Amino acid sequence: MKGAILHAPHDVRFEERAEPTILQPSDAVIRLSATCICGSDLWPYRGANPVTTPTPMDHEYCGVVEDVGAAVSSIKPGQFVIGSFFASDNTCSNCKAGYQSGCQHAEFVGGAQAPRLRVPLADGTLVATTDVPSEDLIPDLLALSDVMGTGWFAADAANVKPGKTVVVVGDGAVGLLGVLSAKQMGAERIIVMSRHGPRQQLAREFGATDIVTERGDEGVAHIKQLTGGIGADSVLECVGTQESMMQAIRSARQGGYVSYVGVPHGVALDGTQLFYTHVHLHGGPAPVRRFLPQLIGLVFDGRIKPGKVFDLTLPLDQVAEGYRAMDERRAIKTLLRL
Amino acid sequence: MKGAILHAPHDVRFEERAEPTILQPSDAVIRLSATCICGSDLWPYRGANPVTTPTPMDHEYCGVVEDVGAAVSSIKPGQFVIGSFFASDNTCSNCKAGYQSGCQHAEFVGGAQAPRLRVPLADGTLVATTDVPSEDLIPDLLALSDVMGTGWFAADAANVKPGKTVVVVGDGAVGLLGVLSAKQMGAERIIVMSRHGPRQQLAREFGATDIVTERGDEGVAHIKQLTGGIGADSVLECVGTQESMMQAIRSARQGGYVSYVGVPHGVALDGTQLFYTHVHLHGGPAPVRRFLPQLIGLVFDGRIKPGKVFDLTLPLDQVAEGYRAMDERRAIKTLLRL
Repeated sequence: MKGAILHAPHDVRFEERAEPTILQPSDAVIRLSATCICGSDLWPYRGANPVTTPTPMDHEYCGVVEDVGAAVSSIKPGQFVIGSFFASDNTCSNCKAGYQSGCQHAEFVGGAQAPRLRVPLADGTLVATTDVPSEDLIPDLLALSDVMGTGWFAADAANVKPGKTVVVVGDGAVGLLGVLSAKQMGAERIIVMSRHGPRQQLAREFGATDIVTERGDEGVAHIKQLTGGIGADSVLECVGTQESMMQAIRSARQGGYVSYVGVPHGVALDGTQLFYTHVHLHGGPAPVRRFLPQLIGLVFDGRIKPGKVFDLTLPLDQVAEGYRAMDERRAIKTLLRL
Repeated sequence: MKGAILHAPHDVRFEERAEPTILQPSDAVIRLSATCICGSDLWPYRGANPVTTPTPMDHEYCGVVEDVGAAVSSIKPGQFVIGSFFASDNTCSNCKAGYQSGCQHAEFVGGAQAPRLRVPLADGTLVATTDVPSEDLIPDLLALSDVMGTGWFAADAANVKPGKTVVVVGDGAVGLLGVLSAKQMGAERIIVMSRHGPRQQLAREFGATDIVTERGDEGVAHIKQLTGGIGADSVLECVGTQESMMQAIRSARQGGYVSYVGVPHGVALDGTQLFYTHVHLHGGPAPVRRFLPQLIGLVFDGRIKPGKVFDLTLPLDQVAEGYRAMDERRAIKTLLRL
């Protein structure tokens, strides 16, 4: 089969790769219904993470089970399934506590920009839908695999509750779906930090009530001005840089909640500064598996349409253009058709 | 009057100071029933914080109100009162959210190692007891002013609940009262990291079930071994150094809760490392005022005896010896009689 391989920064190629097969008895192999490009794929694409070997890309997937290993009992060929970027057994203590992305047997699932994919720990990792979904739901369901699950975790980890005031730092797909999540959780006021017209528009469509275009001290001052001088109850940090992290922490009220879900790049937190903010800080790689059953229900019920973040659709063989469009911020997120 | 003044590292003097008076209409002046030395007083005493000017020391107090300003309405002369190290109006948004130590009008209360003390924002800061307490309760009530309130906040911020497994990093007075607090909150297992015999003994008396003497990697390994390989639900960091902070974070389970209540000295948290631990992090200067009514009740009901951390009692004029004893770890905490 042919799939996407990153050879070096800005060098993604669509080329022949080995067909995935059952390697462990707990594996499944699925045929993807669609795939996409993650904001985190841009870190190695831009050279922020080193590319030491040709690397099959992405980790977001949904599709139909083709084959399962001998030890797989709950997942069956023919089912439509969604999984997350960390395979998890869903039975260990960490999984039971809701941190499947910290599973004691976690295994990263890579190489989803391809027609077929091997998924380890299939029984724990994959969630089957009751019905095979119609074609128009595929973008929404694919989004659950990472970006929507991560936005939801960001809102959950930032303690978003009905009536609360929320700030979202970052207008990428995760930040935008953090807005959607906060709205679903009943936030009264949702302030998005964004300087990009089309993203501001989608943020408003998802439930944002205010847009702040300033950054740094001016951004903090504007947030304070919008929140009676005290800062927000909940802040979702959806970027992963030092600047965005400090923006988030400084935008929260005393004792407020700050979540961070983007892999930090060069972030160092000063203990003393953090101490006097009194913020609650919680984040990490999103335990998407925890939220999948609920989010699948919301999609099938038509209550959320997270697939709206895909503003560019290309056939898989044009994957390189998909990366360029996201890198240049011409696209929020690229869906790749198979 | 005479009180304690720090002139330089290791140079505490008992000498003449100005009598406190009402400076603002919201002030009170109280006559202290006893005073003491805080672990945080050791930072400047040891030179870790610069001493730029002769400084009246400590911030822990309880006693009888002598005088109040014209704007004070709820606090009256003759009442026995306890307050905290940050004066707070107890009416602003931050106070209402339970973060009185982040009050929008917070003012640090210093100079309590003396017979009398001015307390700003008296109505918000001071909590009066129903009855004037008997002499034997004074150490317990004085402890509520900071060290017990801080230990309680540490347990609360680390989400200690019935049946949970708790680690306390630090065997100072705050750590020991963190043990007492965790026990009161129903923790099933309380592991204390300590290498000091008398402190281990008091920790056990307060409810500790296990003692870990190792530190660093070995300390983490021992904690993991005691917790089924996954780490503790709640970890209380009660020191404030980089080493203790990392010890705490690494001792928590995935998604566990880490609180930190000692003023950080030289602490920097690596964002990426923190990210993959999935811990909840919360701390800051303890909002003691939030807990005072409840803790006063527990003392009067005889359910807690936090005054046990005072293992050395001296007259105030021997304050310098009190500092030496704590600095050399001959005493856990020194009570100063007036």
